Amino acid sequence: MDKITKRADDYSQWYLDIIEAADLAQYGPVKGTMIIKPYGYAIWENIQKLLDKKIKDTGHQNMYFPLLIPKSFLSKEASHVEGFAKECAVVTHYRLKNDSTGKIVIDEKAKLEEELIIRPTSETIINNSFSQWIKSWRDLPILINQWANVMRWEMRTRPFLRTSEFLWQEGHTAHLSEKEAEKEARKMLKVYVDLVENKLAMSVVAGKKSDSEKFAGALYTYTIEAMMQDGKALQSATSHNLGQNFAKAFDIKFLDKENNFQYVWQTSWGMSTRIIGGLIMTHSDDLGLVLPPAIAPIKVVVVPILKNGEDNSKVLAFVKKLKLGVKEVEIDSRENLSAGAKYNQWEKKGVPIRLEVGPREIENNSVVLVRRDKNTKEKVQIGSLAKIIKVILQDMQENLHKKAKEFREKNTKTVDSWDEFKKEIEANNFVLAHWSGEKEVEEKIKKETNATIRCLPFDHKKEKGSCVYSKRPSQGRVLFAKAY
Amino acid sequence: MDKITKRADDYSQWYLDIIEAADLAQYGPVKGTMIIKPYGYAIWENIQKLLDKKIKDTGHQNMYFPLLIPKSFLSKEASHVEGFAKECAVVTHYRLKNDSTGKIVIDEKAKLEEELIIRPTSETIINNSFSQWIKSWRDLPILINQWANVMRWEMRTRPFLRTSEFLWQEGHTAHLSEKEAEKEARKMLKVYVDLVENKLAMSVVAGKKSDSEKFAGALYTYTIEAMMQDGKALQSATSHNLGQNFAKAFDIKFLDKENNFQYVWQTSWGMSTRIIGGLIMTHSDDLGLVLPPAIAPIKVVVVPILKNGEDNSKVLAFVKKLKLGVKEVEIDSRENLSAGAKYNQWEKKGVPIRLEVGPREIENNSVVLVRRDKNTKEKVQIGSLAKIIKVILQDMQENLHKKAKEFREKNTKTVDSWDEFKKEIEANNFVLAHWSGEKEVEEKIKKETNATIRCLPFDHKKEKGSCVYSKRPSQGRVLFAKAY
Repeated sequence: MDKITKRADDYSQWYLDIIEAADLAQYGPVKGTMIIKPYGYAIWENIQKLLDKKIKDTGHQNMYFPLLIPKSFLSKEASHVEGFAKECAVVTHYRLKNDSTGKIVIDEKAKLEEELIIRPTSETIINNSFSQWIKSWRDLPILINQWANVMRWEMRTRPFLRTSEFLWQEGHTAHLSEKEAEKEARKMLKVYVDLVENKLAMSVVAGKKSDSEKFAGALYTYTIEAMMQDGKALQSATSHNLGQNFAKAFDIKFLDKENNFQYVWQTSWGMSTRIIGGLIMTHSDDLGLVLPPAIAPIKVVVVPILKNGEDNSKVLAFVKKLKLGVKEVEIDSRENLSAGAKYNQWEKKGVPIRLEVGPREIENNSVVLVRRDKNTKEKVQIGSLAKIIKVILQDMQENLHKKAKEFREKNTKTVDSWDEFKKEIEANNFVLAHWSGEKEVEEKIKKETNATIRCLPFDHKKEKGSCVYSKRPSQGRVLFAKAY
Repeated sequence: MDKITKRADDYSQWYLDIIEAADLAQYGPVKGTMIIKPYGYAIWENIQKLLDKKIKDTGHQNMYFPLLIPKSFLSKEASHVEGFAKECAVVTHYRLKNDSTGKIVIDEKAKLEEELIIRPTSETIINNSFSQWIKSWRDLPILINQWANVMRWEMRTRPFLRTSEFLWQEGHTAHLSEKEAEKEARKMLKVYVDLVENKLAMSVVAGKKSDSEKFAGALYTYTIEAMMQDGKALQSATSHNLGQNFAKAFDIKFLDKENNFQYVWQTSWGMSTRIIGGLIMTHSDDLGLVLPPAIAPIKVVVVPILKNGEDNSKVLAFVKKLKLGVKEVEIDSRENLSAGAKYNQWEKKGVPIRLEVGPREIENNSVVLVRRDKNTKEKVQIGSLAKIIKVILQDMQENLHKKAKEFREKNTKTVDSWDEFKKEIEANNFVLAHWSGEKEVEEKIKKETNATIRCLPFDHKKEKGSCVYSKRPSQGRVLFAKAY
């Protein structure tokens, strides 16, 4: 690719350009699908490793449920089927054959009695098992998670942000009491907050979804909402208190200590490859991808300045001996590519630190160190290199987080009039405003401004006011924004 | 489950009983699918961790390709479509709807123009991308791998061994030359041998498949074949030299150093959750699962002997302070379950070492140590516990491997007459016999005895002889067996 479009010129194109320039992913041959390329997948593996540890440390076990779900399962929970049936890939046959002309066609004899759905999410198939496994209060809680691919048919797709197939983890739990389920749903949201803030260096608003925005089948949905550089919100992970909705639909009952049958209380929670879209759009700049060190597949790239057709053994020996104090290092000793072209490539890939080493540096026992977030250059003596790299990586991690937080705060406006509301939403800000709590009002606001309620923030004050749209009484401000 | 069927009584039922007793997996709601339960999945995660490291250490990168493959892709390589079209799950629609009675039905308006196949393996979709990515010799080699679920419709299924959906890794590579591809295919088979012998403690014969048994689309297929305790062979992993078959079908060409277009040379290789079936059937006994320490999710279980209704704090404090020297430890302090019942459960789960601790042990500053492979008990002073555990785990790993190797060798017969051949195959042995190299002969032998050629072993001597069936000339002995 030649040049990355500037954010100010065309934000959407900038996003696609970053993905191409950093070689993270590309569209697959089937509309709406995505091929995750090695560098993009390495980022996902780093996220997986960190999140998987947190999930296990909070007492959950991984397991694996089948990809295909009987159609009838989907319709057991009324609001769930409404939410998912409309975007399902349906398997109807299990064999192909050659027709008389030799073409490959469906073998009509191999038609399934009941159609199967590729999982859009696994509540139905997992709760079908829970109903077999749970008999007594002694079987509770059940705390499980799976890493899997899921599919929701999408017409308008964008790499990472919205693809028909995506990768994710989905946690599913069953509890003795409403209180325990609520505690679990909130605990897992905190796990996401911790990962996203402290490792991905993003900044989010945590809160509760309004009824119209909650998960199909949930009692409450908790969410974390990040602000992208165009001011739009990205839902970055969700955690649902499912109440007893699925328990009743799938008849998941246990005998309590007093020998009475009770329905279990449940949660589910997930984070997907979508977060990589959020990561890209939070930190990157007009030069390319920017990655927080904690998640970067390569933390330091060393570029020895090689002379074409000359003996480069001295510089190559020098860079190999450098003590960098980090494991994730790439030494780029490719020939037939200028040092400048290499700088450019690694800049596009968002590697946190680049070391440039030529004959002059060797003479002075030094290297030139470039940090990606600020694009500053400094000369560093090799004796103090490991120490300085450690300090800079730490500083960069904090700096990126701080920048994201300040950006979100700066572009979050508290408004009280409808005119202000429209103006600030039009200007792509997050808006904190009073809302009457009525679904009809929420719908009208969405229709007029394209803004949705992202969440009822956890840190919102009980503060009486009147709805920015309807003027009817409100119990506190909620967060509105345009969203991905 | 009450009791595990004895191997001698009903081997197939024994296998199913082990899986249930150790709580590894169960059938899913759709015929042929499997739910991998936490303990079974933890074994898979351990295998993944070890194999993933080896795959990366040999220079491969992970990535992810879409689940759904356009039907037309499948038919591009002639023998590949023959091999896979007959067992494909086919997606024909992308939406459901409510019919007039409120039932959920397929929305016929949402019919796909071209049917999509759930990947049975990913050669076709990956090679479609390779044809876009590879332009010049500088782009080669491409060395990639993916961890994914795949689906092959199966009518007769058995947990782990044969399920319609299974989990695996599939490596796919493209090279400059035939020699390089051949080297890669053999290198990756060695990676599997190393994992299976040294970590899973299984014992395998490595070799080349006969033409009728090779992968659909391959030039050569290399395989490792393990012997199960019933004497049958289990193909445990395969590595294919694909030659230029897919390169020609998908038009994957590069410009060589002399500016000529050439087709690439390719390989693919995979190991799946099937290996867990092999692991179970290699080591387990009539008491339950037996796991080699290198792959066991729990290496040591500590069972404090608790008295109902008494103060057990002393014994609980004692077990918590034990220095075991391993991380994978479970302390089973459940109440309302006798120590004997716990011993039984952990025995069924194949935990390598069990420590029993009661008041008498505390008095003597000792524990009772039971090792799972030999079911021997010994008293160990707590001061030397960590050291002894280390030695026993090491010894158990070697002992299980030795046992598997000796079992396979003892039950491998070298025969020269057709009567002997039939007798030894009938008795469920591996048989080394001369074969004329003719496909028709291979087919007749299979028809008459149910034995297939498992491989032409790498270590086979060039040794002239006459075919055990046709009496025609043979260049060396090949390995016959009944197989899973």
